[in-house]
Amino acid sequence: MNVSEYMQTLGQNARVAARAMARASTEDKNKALLAIADSISEQRDRVKAANQRDMQRGQENGLDAALLDRLELTDERIDTMIEGLQQVAALADPVGEITDLKYRPSGIQVGKMRVPLGVIGIIYESRPNVTIEAASLCLKSGNAAILRGGSEAIEANQALSDCIRAGLESAGLPATAVQVVETTDRAAVGELITMPEYVDVVVPRGGKGLIERISRDAKVTVIKHLDGICHVYIDEFADKTKAVNIAINAKTHRYGTCNTMETLLVHQAVAATLLPELAAAYAGLGVELRGCARSVDILNDITSATDADWDTEYLAPVLAVRIVDSLEEAMDHINDHGSHHTDAIVTENYTLARRFLTEVDSSSVMVNASTRFADGFEYGLGAEIGISTDKIHARGPVGLEGLTSQKYVVLGNGEIRK
Amino acid sequence: MNVSEYMQTLGQNARVAARAMARASTEDKNKALLAIADSISEQRDRVKAANQRDMQRGQENGLDAALLDRLELTDERIDTMIEGLQQVAALADPVGEITDLKYRPSGIQVGKMRVPLGVIGIIYESRPNVTIEAASLCLKSGNAAILRGGSEAIEANQALSDCIRAGLESAGLPATAVQVVETTDRAAVGELITMPEYVDVVVPRGGKGLIERISRDAKVTVIKHLDGICHVYIDEFADKTKAVNIAINAKTHRYGTCNTMETLLVHQAVAATLLPELAAAYAGLGVELRGCARSVDILNDITSATDADWDTEYLAPVLAVRIVDSLEEAMDHINDHGSHHTDAIVTENYTLARRFLTEVDSSSVMVNASTRFADGFEYGLGAEIGISTDKIHARGPVGLEGLTSQKYVVLGNGEIRK
Repeated sequence: MNVSEYMQTLGQNARVAARAMARASTEDKNKALLAIADSISEQRDRVKAANQRDMQRGQENGLDAALLDRLELTDERIDTMIEGLQQVAALADPVGEITDLKYRPSGIQVGKMRVPLGVIGIIYESRPNVTIEAASLCLKSGNAAILRGGSEAIEANQALSDCIRAGLESAGLPATAVQVVETTDRAAVGELITMPEYVDVVVPRGGKGLIERISRDAKVTVIKHLDGICHVYIDEFADKTKAVNIAINAKTHRYGTCNTMETLLVHQAVAATLLPELAAAYAGLGVELRGCARSVDILNDITSATDADWDTEYLAPVLAVRIVDSLEEAMDHINDHGSHHTDAIVTENYTLARRFLTEVDSSSVMVNASTRFADGFEYGLGAEIGISTDKIHARGPVGLEGLTSQKYVVLGNGEIRK
Repeated sequence: MNVSEYMQTLGQNARVAARAMARASTEDKNKALLAIADSISEQRDRVKAANQRDMQRGQENGLDAALLDRLELTDERIDTMIEGLQQVAALADPVGEITDLKYRPSGIQVGKMRVPLGVIGIIYESRPNVTIEAASLCLKSGNAAILRGGSEAIEANQALSDCIRAGLESAGLPATAVQVVETTDRAAVGELITMPEYVDVVVPRGGKGLIERISRDAKVTVIKHLDGICHVYIDEFADKTKAVNIAINAKTHRYGTCNTMETLLVHQAVAATLLPELAAAYAGLGVELRGCARSVDILNDITSATDADWDTEYLAPVLAVRIVDSLEEAMDHINDHGSHHTDAIVTENYTLARRFLTEVDSSSVMVNASTRFADGFEYGLGAEIGISTDKIHARGPVGLEGLTSQKYVVLGNGEIRK
């Protein structure tokens, strides 16, 4: 079978399984999630051995240390996968929820019922734990899934695939509800994203290059964010303590995450007092600053930012700093250079806070809070399959609800249209 | 300027206007809507004269009577456009609505704010009144719009475009917030649906051929339904009066609408008593029946349905009739042959009704109500730009909300991530 035929077969299987999954009871879905957890627990040695073969091959192929680290399945990471499955089992089932049921003048009662999307394609890179995360969220939300992990993780992904299949079968759900692509042929991705007859939405997780390629070529909706160029704007009326705490936390809590601040904007009225204190704190934490001309005037020994700095997601202990003269200038900077991911203002001024929330066109807008809070768990979604910076279908952290849609339900008593 | 450059210019204009529209106050948007209504009222003779030139050209080009009828702008239709604008002005503004604002354990408060999508492309055929309907909904929902009407209506559309521009300007909103494509070159459609940098979503309204072509070629999300093959299933436990009323209304209230029933499914236990009464009523109304073998046995003098009948949207006084043995068989028929538009069950049985609502995968599912209720106005949306049979972004009748998205807002008091 060639890759195209193989992927078509997976697609057909998924479409059939999706019907059964849409009807599956909450009890059966939870049973499957817990059975997958049990299976991983029992198969822990097999999963680790498979992962070791991936690691070995990765070392031979000269993968860099960061990639090898993401690839490795330690006991701790396996425990986290098992806990993750149990947590998803404990979440409320979004499917079938009826909301907004209201009587209309005609006598009919109209509401909305939450329904699964159908078949979700997930494309990701080295981390094999994504296999379990993605499978559990698709399963709980009543969808079928086709998972395409990185070729470097193929052995671990296949071992995990066996655990998923065992769990699904023990709960009486179709084994094809979650299919892990078995070929490492890159053409499989091209097929997966261009079969709208079998796949309803694609979620790519990984580097910007991968996601750009998928967005360009996909024939189905893509839930994605390309990058996280997040800003904190310290306003003229900011509380100084909140400003410093948030600016430090948003940059240094973790460097490699998409909700980390990459550019700090400071109102000119408070720059001279705040920037030296912040610069000292950043220096102590090993963060390099790259400033606009006015920041360099105040801080002297920092690097000058180039135009490229305003558009860069460093994912590293580097921070661009710019002094602005007004809220308008800050918002223009954010709307022009940001990635519509997460942006925060620090201010005590009610009207400026309200304007920032309304006028900044990002998937998360914040007042007096660290950008690091932009996260499905922190928002109370219970889980997160990704963060969308688009506006169609989903925006911001995407949890179980983002993998569903709503149909209309109409309850009547024999009403006819006059 | 060639068509590609022209459309790119419209796109750039729209993208700039969209920013201003997203910030526009409810008052200014309503002022613009009412000013457009006034302008149409003042320019009525000019609009009618332009339409007369379209009609004249259409007659010379041999357009058929149905198309000429859709094309004509009578005084009554112009009044309806004016009233429509006033009604949209009276609707609640969806933009800026904050919902679900809840405290999280970290101390932050997380909610969602409704925001415009950005730039909407609308592609439609002969009816010039769609120009005003589409413009008013995009305007009220804070979006910019690019409208591409049929070439046969170009003169009337340009006259209406002048009224829209005058209304926008008198309210201080950008005149480019609504742009009506001035060229009749078909290549303009191809450009409009393949510039994701300027257009966020496309709504095609028209024949199945047009919509299929646009869905296939578009590089942006398409909100659409291809056809409306709607079913009424009269269950074994149906109330006979409700069943007859609904079956007659769903078919005969209007023949050319997408929510009209095209196939009637009847449980075998009630077929022999119900079908003769229904057949007599349909015959009296001039509806031709095409039945399965068992229906033909009962009704004798009706046509036998072919396989193609189950998949046909007649949009005419023709009805396919099939007898089924169970709810399962009815639902399988609907899921296999329907178009996921609107399907209804008539039953007094609680459990069967509940199963139908849950298991039928259509954008509207109904119990004991006529499929003709599937409509934005009947559902209380206040307006309708189309009906979506897809699951991504919008499903069912799409009103103002369907032209918006939700971003997350986070209100804090200096919280940082631990």
